Amino acid sequence: MEGDLTLQLRIFDLNCWAIRYLSKRRQERVQLIGDMLRRERFDLVLLQEVWSEQDYSDLKARLGGCYPFSHYFRSGVIGSGLCIFSRFPILDTLLYQYSLNGYPYMLQHGDWFCGKSVGLVIIKISGILFNVYVTHLHAEYCREKDAYLPHRLVQAWELAQFIRHTSKAADVVLLGGDLNMHPEDVGIRLLRGWTGLRDAFAEATRFEGCEDGCTLIPNNCFTVKTELLPFPLGIRIDYILYKAISSFTVKCEELKTTTGTAPGMDIPFSDHEAVMATLHIRRQGQAAGATLGTAEPMLADVVTEARTEVGVGLRAAQRQRYSTGRMAVLALLLLLLQAAAALGALAGLAAGQPFPKLSFSLLAFLAIGVLLLATGLHLFHTIEVKMLQGTEEQMRMALRALQERP
Amino acid sequence: MEGDLTLQLRIFDLNCWAIRYLSKRRQERVQLIGDMLRRERFDLVLLQEVWSEQDYSDLKARLGGCYPFSHYFRSGVIGSGLCIFSRFPILDTLLYQYSLNGYPYMLQHGDWFCGKSVGLVIIKISGILFNVYVTHLHAEYCREKDAYLPHRLVQAWELAQFIRHTSKAADVVLLGGDLNMHPEDVGIRLLRGWTGLRDAFAEATRFEGCEDGCTLIPNNCFTVKTELLPFPLGIRIDYILYKAISSFTVKCEELKTTTGTAPGMDIPFSDHEAVMATLHIRRQGQAAGATLGTAEPMLADVVTEARTEVGVGLRAAQRQRYSTGRMAVLALLLLLLQAAAALGALAGLAAGQPFPKLSFSLLAFLAIGVLLLATGLHLFHTIEVKMLQGTEEQMRMALRALQERP
Repeated sequence: MEGDLTLQLRIFDLNCWAIRYLSKRRQERVQLIGDMLRRERFDLVLLQEVWSEQDYSDLKARLGGCYPFSHYFRSGVIGSGLCIFSRFPILDTLLYQYSLNGYPYMLQHGDWFCGKSVGLVIIKISGILFNVYVTHLHAEYCREKDAYLPHRLVQAWELAQFIRHTSKAADVVLLGGDLNMHPEDVGIRLLRGWTGLRDAFAEATRFEGCEDGCTLIPNNCFTVKTELLPFPLGIRIDYILYKAISSFTVKCEELKTTTGTAPGMDIPFSDHEAVMATLHIRRQGQAAGATLGTAEPMLADVVTEARTEVGVGLRAAQRQRYSTGRMAVLALLLLLLQAAAALGALAGLAAGQPFPKLSFSLLAFLAIGVLLLATGLHLFHTIEVKMLQGTEEQMRMALRALQERP
Repeated sequence: MEGDLTLQLRIFDLNCWAIRYLSKRRQERVQLIGDMLRRERFDLVLLQEVWSEQDYSDLKARLGGCYPFSHYFRSGVIGSGLCIFSRFPILDTLLYQYSLNGYPYMLQHGDWFCGKSVGLVIIKISGILFNVYVTHLHAEYCREKDAYLPHRLVQAWELAQFIRHTSKAADVVLLGGDLNMHPEDVGIRLLRGWTGLRDAFAEATRFEGCEDGCTLIPNNCFTVKTELLPFPLGIRIDYILYKAISSFTVKCEELKTTTGTAPGMDIPFSDHEAVMATLHIRRQGQAAGATLGTAEPMLADVVTEARTEVGVGLRAAQRQRYSTGRMAVLALLLLLLQAAAALGALAGLAAGQPFPKLSFSLLAFLAIGVLLLATGLHLFHTIEVKMLQGTEEQMRMALRALQERP
């Protein structure tokens, strides 16, 4: 790129909802997504919830012609679900797994098993270095009483920190993904404020798609309608964010979303709507934005708000750590009591009475089960407490740094 | 720093062996370490195995006068054990937890519970930006048959990748820690080659301390002598590594180690020897080293060697995933058989015979226990397989990039 030349970049982002055995009409939809991507020839495709590596391999084989470069990020039991297809060579990759991601015993939610992460790929186009991030944060299952808010905030903070620390040599930073946060939620304000990333929807010159840019809408036949009752238009939780560092500017010329069905088809690509952005990147004399995206006194308020929520989560985790620890101790005491009773019986102290072998063994097994389970949970909540404390401490440091700035 | 001015930096690194209830004379040693650090007034202190946050807080209180800035990295059940004390303000921090770190059921080794990580702090001294990393990799328990080698190699690779991706704005990179690798091991060659970091011991103009720079020596009263039998001089596994990017050079003027006892005392600071480096940092016209530290054809050999070892680990993990999965299926079958037998008994099919309640319940509990355990282990080894595959894939990409370079 020389002089005033402008680079146009078309980006596609979609949470594909491709869970093996669970997602409806998965294979058909993955095929539809592949067909559309081949037709549309985007520059960069950021996908989430591609849980099956087979689906990724199928897409890769199908898209090899127009997107010769791709990367699948492996993590967790099932995988991270994150992958990237690119028209340009991928120079390097890195994966950062969030330190907190729900609870293993919340089987019905399952987030813990996914090893939620942020993936980074580095791409150079016309001499411009792009750091492209793709991520998927913990889902929100109940907005009124969101037990996962502290975990999602830790993830948003770690995402922001990871981007800040790894993007220092980049000319342009792009982030796409399902953030599971509404545009005004504290987590997204924190992410935007702390990294300086801009929201493509808010900045777009032209917009076409669902009202308010929603990406989870009642009009989509796969969404759970009851969950969207308080939001008649739907909610916006999938984003493309960007910023330019050094001497570049990025402008979002156009933003589009799908609107409930795949063009010309009777089913949508996913339960989420796809987000498609056309960005114009231009070399400039001076960097467009400062490093931080929000005015600093406002940013301090956002960090304080986030820190308060993390503190709420910390106290809940401490209570759980305590109660699981107490449960483990009680189970151990029961076992010791039983051992004493068994020894007593063996020594013939209660020779006259028959020893209740069956109920005794059942009780012992129950106690062992409770002991193991409670110990496991205690260890888990100990890790949770440590990570929440760590994040709170980091946020405290960030606040001090913000306040000390001239 | 202007013109030809040289910045002198004194760095202290020690694996403190401060495990609560387990390490001998822990409190006394932590106090000795604190006294010495206060006396010696280093610029940067990188500590590992400070497992108790209380020990960190005690050190912080004791050292506040001469090291006003410090950070403790929290992770895992016990903590990461990593902390940094600094004479200069810490601008920012980041923690990266390694994706593999041994096995939770290897209780006698315990590494899994420590959440082994690399911690990064960013410090500016006289206008020079330092990225300071502190880490502790998985221990080696049996050199002849090192079952943890693939995990340690994944950690060395993730460490190298983390340093490469986060240090792009830094002028000087410093890494201190217990790498649990001998100087010629493939992991350290990989780390040095892939990051361009230099070994302070190998580069030092003056050296004073244990022969060959060993940091685990038979002369230390806390080391396990039998483990060191094949190495009469001891082994060198604690390192200070460095490199300069942009227009700076770093020279190691002096490297010292302790030699088995704390100066003037009858006990050592730890079972490891401390490493102390005096570095001279100088602004220059051109950057001293290229980004990669080893000639590229040699580096390709190192990456290939590491990848082969990761592949060995991958096949072992796949075998374990298979056998734990089979065990879970067998336990499930046994449970189903039992359920059928119980239903049969209830339906009166075996009315003539007494139903063996006790042995039946014991067997059922055993089967449930085996099922839960085998499922847990199967999930764990599934994650292990994914991460080993991910690393192998990344190394393959790196090799391709090395081969494609002109």
